Amino acid sequence: MPARHHHRLSALEAAALLRRRELSAEALAQDCLARIAERETQVRAWAHIDADHVLRQARALDAGPLRGPLHGLPIGIKDVIDTAELPTQYGSPIYAGHQPAWDAACVTAIRRAGGVIMGKTVTSELATSYRGKTANPHNPAHTPGGSSSGSAAAVADFMVPLALGTQTGGSTLRPSSFCGVVGYKPSFGLLNRHGVKQVSESLDTLGLIGRAVTDVALLAGAVSGRSELLHCALREPPTIGIWRTFEWREAAPETHAALETAARVLSAAGAAVTERVMDPVFAELAAAHKDIQFREMAEALGYELRAHPEQLSASLRESIGYGMQVTPQVYDAKRVIAARARRLIDGVLSEYDMLLAPSAPGEAPHGLEDTGSPVFNRGWTLLRLPCVSVPAFTGPRGLPVGIQVVGRYWHDAKTLACAEWVYRQLESCRQR
Amino acid sequence: MPARHHHRLSALEAAALLRRRELSAEALAQDCLARIAERETQVRAWAHIDADHVLRQARALDAGPLRGPLHGLPIGIKDVIDTAELPTQYGSPIYAGHQPAWDAACVTAIRRAGGVIMGKTVTSELATSYRGKTANPHNPAHTPGGSSSGSAAAVADFMVPLALGTQTGGSTLRPSSFCGVVGYKPSFGLLNRHGVKQVSESLDTLGLIGRAVTDVALLAGAVSGRSELLHCALREPPTIGIWRTFEWREAAPETHAALETAARVLSAAGAAVTERVMDPVFAELAAAHKDIQFREMAEALGYELRAHPEQLSASLRESIGYGMQVTPQVYDAKRVIAARARRLIDGVLSEYDMLLAPSAPGEAPHGLEDTGSPVFNRGWTLLRLPCVSVPAFTGPRGLPVGIQVVGRYWHDAKTLACAEWVYRQLESCRQR
Repeated sequence: MPARHHHRLSALEAAALLRRRELSAEALAQDCLARIAERETQVRAWAHIDADHVLRQARALDAGPLRGPLHGLPIGIKDVIDTAELPTQYGSPIYAGHQPAWDAACVTAIRRAGGVIMGKTVTSELATSYRGKTANPHNPAHTPGGSSSGSAAAVADFMVPLALGTQTGGSTLRPSSFCGVVGYKPSFGLLNRHGVKQVSESLDTLGLIGRAVTDVALLAGAVSGRSELLHCALREPPTIGIWRTFEWREAAPETHAALETAARVLSAAGAAVTERVMDPVFAELAAAHKDIQFREMAEALGYELRAHPEQLSASLRESIGYGMQVTPQVYDAKRVIAARARRLIDGVLSEYDMLLAPSAPGEAPHGLEDTGSPVFNRGWTLLRLPCVSVPAFTGPRGLPVGIQVVGRYWHDAKTLACAEWVYRQLESCRQR
Repeated sequence: MPARHHHRLSALEAAALLRRRELSAEALAQDCLARIAERETQVRAWAHIDADHVLRQARALDAGPLRGPLHGLPIGIKDVIDTAELPTQYGSPIYAGHQPAWDAACVTAIRRAGGVIMGKTVTSELATSYRGKTANPHNPAHTPGGSSSGSAAAVADFMVPLALGTQTGGSTLRPSSFCGVVGYKPSFGLLNRHGVKQVSESLDTLGLIGRAVTDVALLAGAVSGRSELLHCALREPPTIGIWRTFEWREAAPETHAALETAARVLSAAGAAVTERVMDPVFAELAAAHKDIQFREMAEALGYELRAHPEQLSASLRESIGYGMQVTPQVYDAKRVIAARARRLIDGVLSEYDMLLAPSAPGEAPHGLEDTGSPVFNRGWTLLRLPCVSVPAFTGPRGLPVGIQVVGRYWHDAKTLACAEWVYRQLESCRQR
């Protein structure tokens, strides 16, 4: 690896060099900063970055003892996550220059583990759908997806090896698929949300983004304090249920091809791959998710609507308006659907090691206005299951197409192990 | 009702007068402010109060149209709940003078419904156990309980008809019992927590405090947008299961007497009252709650521990230290216990309209150092059930003793209706 290319290292590779003091945190940070300086005008992944703040952290780590598993790794933080030393604007003009009084719990965990807080990555408005300024690093005429736009783009563009996002609908998996990186939404409740701006209380989940499954596992292990997440290895090929979902009609040809190729390759590698037929209640999940999300969002964003309505986008005002029309009776009925589907899916996932499903309808849409559809993510988020988008294929416009690995609730270590196995089997597809 | 005694009205009575414009919001606010001026040096219920801010809100309401079910009602807000116009200090010197950028969702809901934000009530440190400055209004040598100390004391002392608290262990029910007021912890998830400082993510719940069950129901209906909560009437006397809990050995004689008298009076009023025997798994709930609470607390308060350890009380540092020792394996095992007990209690509560249990070990302890034990609340909080402490009896030192009404998960309207029925049947006990 030539000097000034350390930013291309995986998190795991860099962590090993940093641990052995063969690479300094400062040198790695400098390479990442140089990459950002070179590319940021095209990619626009950052809401706030301060090179001095980065280098101060890196030098302090180099001068002191090893701090933990993330020692010296630069990590991007989605700008809906509070940081005590950097402004946090939540992707909204309402919070221009806002300075939180604390670090979010996940930021504290990263600091404790020796991570370098690289800066704040662009989020779409208040982690909802109105776009930020970020472009897809594979083709700046296309969206990176949202709402964790900057985190996915920065990791994909080698600006940082790791970044935090969030997911309420499809805000981590979708941009990860669009940008060709690994996006992991843990089981609901696994990672603490203190200091993360709320969108929908029963759905919001921290997301983790990296260029390899083992990299997001490293970050997940450090943030959660769960060392079992680090050991991403299956003893034998997994049993895989393919579930195209009831939204399959919205899948583009490249997603059809991705799922079919994956099934073929994984089967050839020894996995027992079968198509799964699901209970009709799963057809109701996407709509149930929307009603639950929007009603909760109308509560969570009540202050912004009341005090600063003119600074909300028209589309977000419309979504809040929709949420205010979801009655408690409808909301409760959708909760009942979700609870029933959770019981059923737990039985289904006792029969397989993992499910395989689409990550997104297809390649990233053209233009920056539309961050793409979360339709292939809504149901899984509502089911609270661990999900990993694995980059695997390339679509007709040369843009990435991921596939989604879904595991059983709270079985995150096994889900990551399955995703890592899938990721390695599909290596040859990525190199094509 | 003579002039200058409007602060003694129930919320429901005041709301009716305000709605008919027979009482102005300003007159009610003035009476409450006068009561506070008279009593605050003894009770010390308020962390922040600004008479001008109160009167501005009241006058604006008097000058405009009727705003909603809380029109003109002064409401105290526990100082762990964010307010955009008042400092929020979370009961910690770390946050002296801290000014949030938003109103919590519950505060926005109160404003939208026409409530007057009266001020911030004292909380023990970061909603945990280290005491605030508040005294029990019935006897200032005794604790009001915690952590919602100021909210319970202010309502009990007729400073406000209603206040918001929070409960992670027993922080709403216990002070309500000690101060002789009604404390209601809704089903987990019913009321939005945006803008409430996190202690333990899977346990923290907003609490509502008033002097009558119908008053807390009015507030709950307004905050949740659920009109069904307002209709607190049973058609016939309830079926009641008495469950002394596995912590019964910690109950003082006055709590023995309270439960026995309540059973006799409610039975005489027509309720079918039977003792309930519970599965041994319920004996594990209090310990499971503690491990879950403390591990989550160690995550949520990680920033304070890292950046401001010297400004945390020794007892809180010790609790966080305990939480850091709870391994993921122990935490997960306790979650499994909780999930199993939730399934069992749901079956139990399908056989009764309500359970009756102790609210607290006994009267408020002497002194302000010890805010009392949450041992009779931990299990119910972990079970996520709606709970109401109903003031009913008086202990040997002349201090209040409440009893606890517990309902089925998400059946909050019925639980409030049961609590209202119990409250009315025990009227004669309160007047003794």
